Amino acid sequence: MELGFAKLGGLIPAIIQDDGTREILMVGFVNQESLALTQRSGEMHFFSRSRNKLWKKGETSGHVLKVKEIRVDCDADALLFRVEGSGPGVCHEGYRSCFFRELQSDGTERIVEERQFDPKSVYEKKGAE
Amino acid sequence: MELGFAKLGGLIPAIIQDDGTREILMVGFVNQESLALTQRSGEMHFFSRSRNKLWKKGETSGHVLKVKEIRVDCDADALLFRVEGSGPGVCHEGYRSCFFRELQSDGTERIVEERQFDPKSVYEKKGAE
Repeated sequence: MELGFAKLGGLIPAIIQDDGTREILMVGFVNQESLALTQRSGEMHFFSRSRNKLWKKGETSGHVLKVKEIRVDCDADALLFRVEGSGPGVCHEGYRSCFFRELQSDGTERIVEERQFDPKSVYEKKGAE
Repeated sequence: MELGFAKLGGLIPAIIQDDGTREILMVGFVNQESLALTQRSGEMHFFSRSRNKLWKKGETSGHVLKVKEIRVDCDADALLFRVEGSGPGVCHEGYRSCFFRELQSDGTERIVEERQFDPKSVYEKKGAE
């Protein structure tokens, strides 16, 4: 199958879902190389748009994501990764999921999840993954 | 809160999750106008990259998606919409979810969901939404 990397300059949105709870943990992008690395290693690798490079989730925090299943959508331009996490959360702000805020109708946001860990102790001064 | 529309030429990935089963139904994009319309109407509106225009999910099929909650991620560049569907499925190929295929390690795909409806009878000759 030909995946639609060309639609977005070589990138495909990668939706990360907890295989157990079905919670959405984060959204990133993969290019062909990071997808191949993910498939080969069984651990989630992304392409960072801001840093313009490959990165492995957990390279700083140790919170590696083990890939249980990969789904592709009807247009082959989005991928869903069902994963098993190995830490208290995926978010560099200390939450289980990066989607810890509700967007309200007036445009403001409200935190609706509990913080699980102290990001400073995990990411030190290396910054976000 | 300022959403990161600028990172992707005015678009933000929109992940659509069934509010009950937590299944991922589809992924699309919203621009500012389709997000505003979605918030105002309570029904999911996207921006189509291929057709370069706004569209309401269900405008052809009647399978409208009612938005129960909107979540925003830590970088404010992805949105998660928890929805309640009003039809047998969201996919123009007749499945509950657009992610009805598993991507296997050899690059081939395998259908892992049951077809729920006959797309021809729903979309007639109007084509996909």
